[in-house]
Amino acid sequence: MNWQSGVIAHLNNHRSIRKFQDKKVDEESIRQIIRSAQMASSSNHAQAYSIVGVTDPDKKAELVKLTGDQPFVGTCSHFLVFCADLHRLEAAGRIEGVDIGDNLDTLELFLVATVDASLAAQNAAIAAESLGLGIVYIGGIRNHPAEVCRLLKLPSRVYPVFGLCIGYPNHNPTQKPRLPMEAIYFENEYQTTAVTEPYLHAYNATTEVYYRERTKAVAPYHWTGRIVNYFKGEKRDHMKSFLKMQGFPLE
Amino acid sequence: MNWQSGVIAHLNNHRSIRKFQDKKVDEESIRQIIRSAQMASSSNHAQAYSIVGVTDPDKKAELVKLTGDQPFVGTCSHFLVFCADLHRLEAAGRIEGVDIGDNLDTLELFLVATVDASLAAQNAAIAAESLGLGIVYIGGIRNHPAEVCRLLKLPSRVYPVFGLCIGYPNHNPTQKPRLPMEAIYFENEYQTTAVTEPYLHAYNATTEVYYRERTKAVAPYHWTGRIVNYFKGEKRDHMKSFLKMQGFPLE
Repeated sequence: MNWQSGVIAHLNNHRSIRKFQDKKVDEESIRQIIRSAQMASSSNHAQAYSIVGVTDPDKKAELVKLTGDQPFVGTCSHFLVFCADLHRLEAAGRIEGVDIGDNLDTLELFLVATVDASLAAQNAAIAAESLGLGIVYIGGIRNHPAEVCRLLKLPSRVYPVFGLCIGYPNHNPTQKPRLPMEAIYFENEYQTTAVTEPYLHAYNATTEVYYRERTKAVAPYHWTGRIVNYFKGEKRDHMKSFLKMQGFPLE
Repeated sequence: MNWQSGVIAHLNNHRSIRKFQDKKVDEESIRQIIRSAQMASSSNHAQAYSIVGVTDPDKKAELVKLTGDQPFVGTCSHFLVFCADLHRLEAAGRIEGVDIGDNLDTLELFLVATVDASLAAQNAAIAAESLGLGIVYIGGIRNHPAEVCRLLKLPSRVYPVFGLCIGYPNHNPTQKPRLPMEAIYFENEYQTTAVTEPYLHAYNATTEVYYRERTKAVAPYHWTGRIVNYFKGEKRDHMKSFLKMQGFPLE
């Protein structure tokens, strides 16, 4: 296998890791991971994101509580918090003597910063996995985002989009099946679920097998049942007011 | 070089490609790219994104106009439009006989879908580059998003986050320098620009050299000057009303 085809094999080998060895990732590896994150594209080269790498045991313990008591937030080596960051753009405006604050208040710039953070994070994830490390994304960082801001001293115009646990894997979970390609990729025009619903039913059958075999999985086992179960409750409806308070009025 | 270290070398070799050969990417490569996109993580396995791959010449010509007259949107082989997609989750609710519409209206779910689309896109970009293809992200898809929705028949609760041009490269641009790591990565707590500003000035000096050497680059050549120039105008302030119309009230 040459390294080009190896890249696709590598991407296709991903699974989220939730059990970590008690072993610290060395600084040079972290630098390689962050450097890789930085090489992702960003909107107009704004690089509107920052990363806080948490290793401090007290801070990690606090973050376990704030993100929904997921133990791996504490047991991973580095908990990277990916932040959308317009604070740095505001400083750029100050350096240039131009007030761009009104523009920074827009939904568009919130979107730019959120996407920049996400593209960088996925590069970090892939780089980490190529070093033999395991990763899992933590959306739970948005459970109590104001408290996370206080803990990590995030200033106005910076918010935590998600966390990323990084560490040496201590289990080897089976890979979660994805939706049939026909349900998510369309040529030249979108196909609504009026057309694609058979693929969702086929996927339900696939996931039924997967989740029944997976230890600790509880019913429902089929995909539509699981995601509807998850999303039917009101989830994180504090986000809009949190963001406004944190300097993202989304105008 | 083994394939693991090759992955990081590959990530670090990225540059955006804006000139493409007149050569179609074959279907098997596109399938590999989409499959790789699907293997990215997604929030609670919701996979809340879709991809419309545009190859139709008339549609591409229209998209060139809608995205700011960037010719490479037309000359690339495949123009992939990455969409945040809650339409499929709504259908999952219908299949389960549960109305989750109120939750789908939240800013949180908008965020989930936008991040899902972004993580998938970055995997697609990396996979494409490993096949010898070039890519460039197109935020200009948000210049006239309602028209893009009509052209690609995107239903309510689906919006185009960005485009991704894919094709065989016809130039080999130099790599754009990134911010010093010290300006974007922090250990355990955020450092504001009160602390990191010297790194921004150092970066201005680096980019000054880069942009002066780059053909067609116009002043200002330093990073803070360029991004402030770009972001000082009101940009895409239609996004909030567009999203509301497109089924994302962001409550």
